[in-house]
Amino acid sequence: MFNIIAPLDKVTPEFFNTLQEKIDFKTKPQGSLGLLESIAFKVALLQQSLTPVFTKPSIIVFAADHGIADQGVSLFPQVVTEQMVLNFLQGGAAINCFSAQHDIELKIVNAGVKADFSHITSPHFVNAPIALGTKDFSQQAAMTKEQCLQAINQGAELVKLQHQQGCNVIGFGEMGIANTTSAAAIMAAILNLTGLQCAGRGTGIDQETIAIKAKVIDHAVAKYQLSGADPLTVLQSVGGFEIAMMVGAMLKAAELSMLVLVDGFIASSAALVASEMHDDFLQYTQFCHQSEEQAHQLLLTEMGATPLLHLGMRLGEGSGVAVAYPLLVSALTFLNEMASFTDAGVSDSE
Amino acid sequence: MFNIIAPLDKVTPEFFNTLQEKIDFKTKPQGSLGLLESIAFKVALLQQSLTPVFTKPSIIVFAADHGIADQGVSLFPQVVTEQMVLNFLQGGAAINCFSAQHDIELKIVNAGVKADFSHITSPHFVNAPIALGTKDFSQQAAMTKEQCLQAINQGAELVKLQHQQGCNVIGFGEMGIANTTSAAAIMAAILNLTGLQCAGRGTGIDQETIAIKAKVIDHAVAKYQLSGADPLTVLQSVGGFEIAMMVGAMLKAAELSMLVLVDGFIASSAALVASEMHDDFLQYTQFCHQSEEQAHQLLLTEMGATPLLHLGMRLGEGSGVAVAYPLLVSALTFLNEMASFTDAGVSDSE
Repeated sequence: MFNIIAPLDKVTPEFFNTLQEKIDFKTKPQGSLGLLESIAFKVALLQQSLTPVFTKPSIIVFAADHGIADQGVSLFPQVVTEQMVLNFLQGGAAINCFSAQHDIELKIVNAGVKADFSHITSPHFVNAPIALGTKDFSQQAAMTKEQCLQAINQGAELVKLQHQQGCNVIGFGEMGIANTTSAAAIMAAILNLTGLQCAGRGTGIDQETIAIKAKVIDHAVAKYQLSGADPLTVLQSVGGFEIAMMVGAMLKAAELSMLVLVDGFIASSAALVASEMHDDFLQYTQFCHQSEEQAHQLLLTEMGATPLLHLGMRLGEGSGVAVAYPLLVSALTFLNEMASFTDAGVSDSE
Repeated sequence: MFNIIAPLDKVTPEFFNTLQEKIDFKTKPQGSLGLLESIAFKVALLQQSLTPVFTKPSIIVFAADHGIADQGVSLFPQVVTEQMVLNFLQGGAAINCFSAQHDIELKIVNAGVKADFSHITSPHFVNAPIALGTKDFSQQAAMTKEQCLQAINQGAELVKLQHQQGCNVIGFGEMGIANTTSAAAIMAAILNLTGLQCAGRGTGIDQETIAIKAKVIDHAVAKYQLSGADPLTVLQSVGGFEIAMMVGAMLKAAELSMLVLVDGFIASSAALVASEMHDDFLQYTQFCHQSEEQAHQLLLTEMGATPLLHLGMRLGEGSGVAVAYPLLVSALTFLNEMASFTDAGVSDSE
């Protein structure tokens, strides 16, 4: 569906060596900037530039409702999805504060909330619902195959627009009551794990509710025969419209050689689907934080991902992306602005 | 020496409760911003304000040379301390890039480098050396008691000046070839550990050199009878002028109710000395990152410190402080700018 090429296949061995030398000859012990050095390396590779820069950083927050909320898997009532979309549009949510702090453009997308937003006009809002929430996947598939593909395409289109406006680094957030259940089901299906291994506290549910959530997941994986199923079938059966849009958005961003910033548990489940669809996708990602959601660590490990932050956050909305963004800028700043040993007349190690 | 009062003793129970409510009633699941919530709480307490702000953030980098470098404990020649000070003043080092990125005022202090800086004039430079480097503490105490107290006072004076100019959040960095040996010796002495438990790779030494470093430390702890000795004796025997200045600077900042941002391993050894001198000191600190230096994790654990970042950095200079600073700003941003459930008309958990 998407034409994603391994970044290394785009550059010459000379470029690779020159880049490594540029990093190593900065006035610091080799490797002493840790993860910032690998990020600088990755972004330079993606941009095929020894002086990479971020332009028009953006976060798209996809919101949708989930039929599975009917099974009592969340602490908050479903109406909170709609209320939080309005909060995003009024600028009152965490993601608003953090995006503004770092001049990140924020777009809110109604991917399928159980509410009518047709009266809302805002340059920051895209009203493109697939339906009024998914179906309850304990009863029937969350969406049809057509809806799933439509959501993927729509996510991709939105990224294409941002790219056309000059954006080369993009993060994705989500809002959707009960969507950790959907994400956990995707994880269980693709990684062949049990519901209990993948179900966590979400917004703060107790052990009893976690057990219900785990049972719902195991039941769905069995019902739709998802163990070993292809990623699109998994997405269609237990996913959400916001997750499907994120899958398309992430893959399109990689196709366009943009850096994909991955937020927490739900965004990571979308990245998992994307990585199953395209081998080289993960090379375009930076995982921004490890969420407090218990299964996130395992999910990151399975993808070989090293998250930037471990702050015990579990909010979603793209908040981890926004908070981590200045660290990514620091990586490019040192690459572009630090003096080399030669520039500064500093002796290298003996 | 310093008059440090526990932050909790400065506020009323009403203030405490109002602050906790303000954090809990933001439009997010309770606790979902993790460490950012505890930071917001801490800073509000220090500033005795429900709307705390950072003003004139500053980093002071103290540079000094170490006689112990003669024992071959570092990968770089001693002249690099001087060269790096010049690099700082020319704006070419990592700390220059990261401070500039976040509008942090940077001051470089010659605390005792083995070089003559008398010809240098810069508003960002303070030339206040205690001596041309410490003595080789494998042979004699690193400094005299008078030098130690002079360094502490000088560090304190510099912080007082920053505070007078409106600064309420301050970090400290350091530069000094061989100073991880000094920091490790302080740690071994105060925490009653072996040299091998405290010695790490520094700028990148091999196992053989680590063994030499560990032996140097064990020898010094025995020679000056430092197990169970008072912190000033430890500092004087095996410390460095930049470490002693950091101790005074940190304690003064706490006395002035400023937030103290602690960098990596060497800055943490100064914080350890400060915490031994004043019980309530650590309540004024935020540890900014866990360094790759192997003993740093243990040192942080011993102080009960939760570092903000784990990026595998091991550079010093205050680089961890500068890189972490925007996360601290995010903590205040959410506290000051996010809507509450009531403001936004969002339903709280059921």
